[in-house]
Amino acid sequence: MGEALNGLKRTIMCGELREEHVDSDHIVMGWVQRKRNLGGLTFIDLRDRTGILQVVFGEEINKEAFEKADTVRSEYCISVRGRVVRRESPNNSLPTGMIELKGEEIKILSESETPPIYIKEDLDASENIRLKYRYLDLRRSDMQKRFMIRHKTAKAVRDFMDSQGFLEVETPMLTKSTPEGARDYLVPSRNYPGSFYALPQSPQLFKQLLMVSGFDRYFQIVKCFRDEDLRANRQPEFTQVDIEMSFVEVDDVIDMNEKLIQHVFKQVLDVDIKIPFERIPYRVAMAKYGSDKPELRFGMEIENITDAVKNTEFKVFKDVVENGGTIGAIKAENCADMGRKQIDKLTDFVKGFKAKGLAWIAYKEDEIKSPIAKFLTDEELKAIIHKMDAKVGDLILIVSDVKEKVVLTSLGQLRLHLAKELELLKENKEFRFAWITEFPLVSYNEEEDRWEAEHHPFTSPMDEDIQYLDTDPGRVRAKAYDMVLNGEELGGGSIRIHDSSLQEKMFKVLGFTQEKAWERFGFLLEAFKYGPPPHGGLAFGFDRMVMFLSGTDNIKDVVAFPKNQNALCPMTEAPSNVDEVQLDELGLVINLKGEE
Amino acid sequence: MGEALNGLKRTIMCGELREEHVDSDHIVMGWVQRKRNLGGLTFIDLRDRTGILQVVFGEEINKEAFEKADTVRSEYCISVRGRVVRRESPNNSLPTGMIELKGEEIKILSESETPPIYIKEDLDASENIRLKYRYLDLRRSDMQKRFMIRHKTAKAVRDFMDSQGFLEVETPMLTKSTPEGARDYLVPSRNYPGSFYALPQSPQLFKQLLMVSGFDRYFQIVKCFRDEDLRANRQPEFTQVDIEMSFVEVDDVIDMNEKLIQHVFKQVLDVDIKIPFERIPYRVAMAKYGSDKPELRFGMEIENITDAVKNTEFKVFKDVVENGGTIGAIKAENCADMGRKQIDKLTDFVKGFKAKGLAWIAYKEDEIKSPIAKFLTDEELKAIIHKMDAKVGDLILIVSDVKEKVVLTSLGQLRLHLAKELELLKENKEFRFAWITEFPLVSYNEEEDRWEAEHHPFTSPMDEDIQYLDTDPGRVRAKAYDMVLNGEELGGGSIRIHDSSLQEKMFKVLGFTQEKAWERFGFLLEAFKYGPPPHGGLAFGFDRMVMFLSGTDNIKDVVAFPKNQNALCPMTEAPSNVDEVQLDELGLVINLKGEE
Repeated sequence: MGEALNGLKRTIMCGELREEHVDSDHIVMGWVQRKRNLGGLTFIDLRDRTGILQVVFGEEINKEAFEKADTVRSEYCISVRGRVVRRESPNNSLPTGMIELKGEEIKILSESETPPIYIKEDLDASENIRLKYRYLDLRRSDMQKRFMIRHKTAKAVRDFMDSQGFLEVETPMLTKSTPEGARDYLVPSRNYPGSFYALPQSPQLFKQLLMVSGFDRYFQIVKCFRDEDLRANRQPEFTQVDIEMSFVEVDDVIDMNEKLIQHVFKQVLDVDIKIPFERIPYRVAMAKYGSDKPELRFGMEIENITDAVKNTEFKVFKDVVENGGTIGAIKAENCADMGRKQIDKLTDFVKGFKAKGLAWIAYKEDEIKSPIAKFLTDEELKAIIHKMDAKVGDLILIVSDVKEKVVLTSLGQLRLHLAKELELLKENKEFRFAWITEFPLVSYNEEEDRWEAEHHPFTSPMDEDIQYLDTDPGRVRAKAYDMVLNGEELGGGSIRIHDSSLQEKMFKVLGFTQEKAWERFGFLLEAFKYGPPPHGGLAFGFDRMVMFLSGTDNIKDVVAFPKNQNALCPMTEAPSNVDEVQLDELGLVINLKGEE
Repeated sequence: MGEALNGLKRTIMCGELREEHVDSDHIVMGWVQRKRNLGGLTFIDLRDRTGILQVVFGEEINKEAFEKADTVRSEYCISVRGRVVRRESPNNSLPTGMIELKGEEIKILSESETPPIYIKEDLDASENIRLKYRYLDLRRSDMQKRFMIRHKTAKAVRDFMDSQGFLEVETPMLTKSTPEGARDYLVPSRNYPGSFYALPQSPQLFKQLLMVSGFDRYFQIVKCFRDEDLRANRQPEFTQVDIEMSFVEVDDVIDMNEKLIQHVFKQVLDVDIKIPFERIPYRVAMAKYGSDKPELRFGMEIENITDAVKNTEFKVFKDVVENGGTIGAIKAENCADMGRKQIDKLTDFVKGFKAKGLAWIAYKEDEIKSPIAKFLTDEELKAIIHKMDAKVGDLILIVSDVKEKVVLTSLGQLRLHLAKELELLKENKEFRFAWITEFPLVSYNEEEDRWEAEHHPFTSPMDEDIQYLDTDPGRVRAKAYDMVLNGEELGGGSIRIHDSSLQEKMFKVLGFTQEKAWERFGFLLEAFKYGPPPHGGLAFGFDRMVMFLSGTDNIKDVVAFPKNQNALCPMTEAPSNVDEVQLDELGLVINLKGEE
C-alpha cells in the first residue's frame, strides 16, 4: 500500500545536495539503495537519477520516522523530509559525501519485492534477464548516464543543424517497399487487403524529393528498419541522423559534417576534435589497411613487397608474381621473439580470410629467422627488410595471393587482430577521424553477373571518370564519402546524380531496363524532370555515435528497450499472436511451412 | 542537360538581399518563378526557400548570359552571378523589392518540363494532384513556411523540455499488439512466422516503465500509428509530444505544460500566452458547452431552464420533466428576426444529434414570437426569458429530452454551428486555452454491458472518489486533464495509478480477470511490484499544435508526405504488392474475401 503525495513537493534531487545546503530543510524522493541499522540509527542510501544521498533516521531525530524507516527495504520508493547536516565521517567517494539528511518524516510511496537483478553499476547478469526486467536494468546509474548522453547528443546535433539553417522534416514511416537493398519490414494494409506498406530502411528518396522541393537543407533524427539476421550491434530498428543539402559538392558536405561532429563532441564530452579530418581515398585505405574503415590509431600499415621479390625463384612468390598477384606484408614491432605456437594461431587467423598461408621473417639481433629464408636470396631478404623499414626485434608477416583483395583483407584483419593481442590501444582514449573518399561507383556481383551500385543508384560518379561509365564501369569512382572513427563507419553519403541523362546511363550500367527503373523509382525520376538542384548528403548511425560518446561497444546499452538476437523483446514478448479477426481484415492467412 | 557547379558556391540566399548589399557581387541559386522579356532586357524572378529576387539580364550587362537567360523556362534550376544594384522602380510588395541582381553569368543547373501544378501560394488544385506531385506542391512558399514553423515548434518544445531536465528517450516502434483501444498496424515477424509486432498507438506503457526506472522526467516527439477509418484531419501516422514525470500530482503536470505552451507560442509566433489557464471541470464544460473541448472565444452558453417550466402543462416539456429529463436553451443575440427557413435548418441540424426538435422564442420589440408560446403561460415564458437573460432582439433556442446528454450535445453543436453561421469568430485571432479536469474515470459501454476506461486503465481516480469505485463507478472522477485550445483538444493526460491494490480494483471495475489483465499488461504489472514512483504525464498532438501555429485547419498542410483519405500515398503508390518470396518468409498467404 503506497502513501499519496498529498501536496508534498520535492525540493531538490538527491545528488544535488552539498555542503552549502547545511542547516536547510529539504524534501527528497527516490529509491532505497540500501539500509543499515547501526546502534539506534538507521542509515538509508537514497537514490535518484542524479546520485545517492545518505539519510539518517534516529529515535532522537524523530521517533515515528525512525520506526517507519526500519520497515523499508531495498528499492522501496520513499520521500524524506529533513534537515541537511554535515557528516561526522565524510565519504569522499560520493559527491554528496560531506553531508547527510536527518530524516524527520518519511513516506513510503510504494513497496518493492526483492528485485531479480542487482541495481548497481557494471552488473554481471545474463542479457536475457536484464532485457526481461529492463525497467530495473535501467535503474542502474551507468545505464541512466548513457541515456543522458544520448539525450544530450541528439540535442547537440539538433542545435547545430538548426544554427546552420537545416530544417528537421519528418518523412513517412508507412511507405513503399523497394526491393533493392536489405529486406523490408512490411505492414499489411487494411484498406487494400493484399497490399503492404514498408517501414523505411532510410528516408533516402524522401530527402532527395525535399531537395527537389527547394527545402535546401534538411535533416532528421529518425528511426529506420531492416529485417536482417541480426549481427552483433545491429537492431531491427535503429536511429539515423539523416542529412541532405542542395547546391553543394563533396567539400561542402564534408566541411559541414566535420563542424557538426566537432560541435557534438565538444557539447557532450567537452573534447576538442581537430578539423579538417584526414581524407583517404578508398584505394589507399584498402592498400594500407585492407579496409574501407581503417583504424588509424596505430601504424602497422600494409606494404606491397611484390617488387622486392619480383625476380625470386621461390616458387610460392614466383607463381603469384607471374600471375599478376600481390605480395603484401605488415611489420609487428618488437615481436621477433613471438613463439611458434602464436604464429601458427596467426596463420589460422588469416586463413579465415582466404589467405593460403602466412610467411614470416623475424629480424633478430643475431640472425634472421624465417621458414622461407632458405628459399630467398640474401638480397631478396634484405630488400624485404628494407621495404618494411624493419628494425632489429621486428617481425614481418607476409601474405601472397593472386587476388590482391585476399592479401589486403587478410593482412588488414591480421593488423587489427595483432593490435588487440598486443594491447596497442588499451589505454588509448583518442578519437581518430578520417574521411574515406573516391569509393568505387559500382561493384561486380559475380553471382548475378551484373554491376551493382556500391551505395545506391543515385550516387554521382566523379566528373573525370564519367568517360569510363560505358566501357569500364569498375574503374569509375563515386562522389561518395564515409566518415570513419577508430575503425568504425560513423556515417556515409554522397553527392547525388541530378541529371536525368546521367541517371539513365547509370541505370543502364546497373542493368535496369527503363521500365524496371520507373517501376521502382518512378516518382523520383518523375520529380527529376522538374529542375532538381545539385544535392548531396550523409547519414550517421546515431546509435553508434552514442556508443562512442558513452564508451560502450554494445548497442543494447544505448537503446532503451532493445530486441535480442532473435529480434524478440523479452520484456513485452513482442512479436506475439494476434486475433483471427485482425488478420481477416487484412486479407491474410497464416501458413507455416511445417503445417503445409 | 544540367551544368555542374564546378566549385561555384552560393554566397547568399535570394530572399536575403537588401539595399545594404548594393554594389556587392553575389552568387544566388534557385528556381525560375517567371521570366519576362522587356525591350532588350530579360527579367527573371528567382526563387529559393527564403523568397524571390529579381535578376536582370541584358545585352549590355553580359551578352552571353543574356542569350542563355533567354532559353530558361519556369522551374529551371539555375545559378546566377552578378552585381546587386538599386532598382529603378522598387517593388514594395517584395522584401527584396528595392534591389535587383545584374546577371553577369548564368548556369542552367537543370531544366524543367512544364509542371502539372502552379508553384504559387493559395493554390487551388485538387488534393490528389497536389499529393501525387507533392515535391512540386512543397515548392510553394506557403507550404514551405509551414514546415519552417513545424521545425521551429519541435525545436522550441525540445529546448524547453531540456531546460526543465526532461530526457528525450526513444521508445520502440516494433512493439507488442495490445487489443485495447484503436486498431493496431501490424508488422509480421520473419523470425517467428505467424507472430506480429504492432506499431505503437502511443508510448504509454514504455513511458510509465521509464518512470519505474527512475528516469524522473521523460519526453519524446514521436510517431504513433492508428489503423482507423480516416476522418478529416487524421493520418494513419501522426506525431505526438509525449511527456511523463515522477513524484508529481495534477497541479505539477498542469503547471509544467502551461509553461511549455507559453514558451512555444512565444518562440514560434512571438505571442504572449497568459498562464495559468482557466480550469473547467468536465461536468461544467458539458453543462455549459455540451462538449469536453469547449470553444470559449464566444458566449452563447447552454442554460438549464427545466426549473422555469417545471410545472408546465405543455405536454412536451411536462413529459420530459416528469421523466427526469432536461430542458436546455441557448440564446442567439440579435437573432430574433431569423427567418422560418433558417430556423428549420437549425432544427434539422440538431436532429442530427438525436434531438427530437428545436423550440424557439423570438423576443421582439413588439411581441414574443414562438410556436410554443400558446402552450406556455405568460409566467413560464417570462421565467424562460429571465433565466436566459434575454434582451429585446434575442432568439432563444430550446431542446428538451429525457436524456440530458442529447440536450447538451445538440445544443453544444448548435452553438458552434451558429457561431460559424453568424461569423462570430471570423476576425478572431485569439488563442483561448483551458484545462478540462475531473473527467469521469469510466463510462458505460451499453453494447458490451461493461464499464470502460475513459482514458486508459492506468488513470488514477481522484482520492475523494475512490470510495465509490466498487459501488458507483460512474460517479468516480479521474485525475485526468485535457488541454483545450479554441475548441480543439491539444493534449491530454493523467496521473497514473502506482498502487498495485488500487490497480487491481480498477481492473475489477473494468471486468478484467486477473488472468486477462496479466495477459495484456503483465510486464507493466510486474514492473509495478518494484517500487513504482507516483507519476503522471500528458501527450500533445504535435500535428495539431503545428496546425494552430501555422494557421491551417488541414493536417495535410503540416505533414510533408501525407496519405489520402484511403491511407494511400498518391505519390509513391504505397501500399503496394510485394513478392511472393517475401510473404513466404513471413509465413503468410493472401486470401481476399472475393477469392474465397
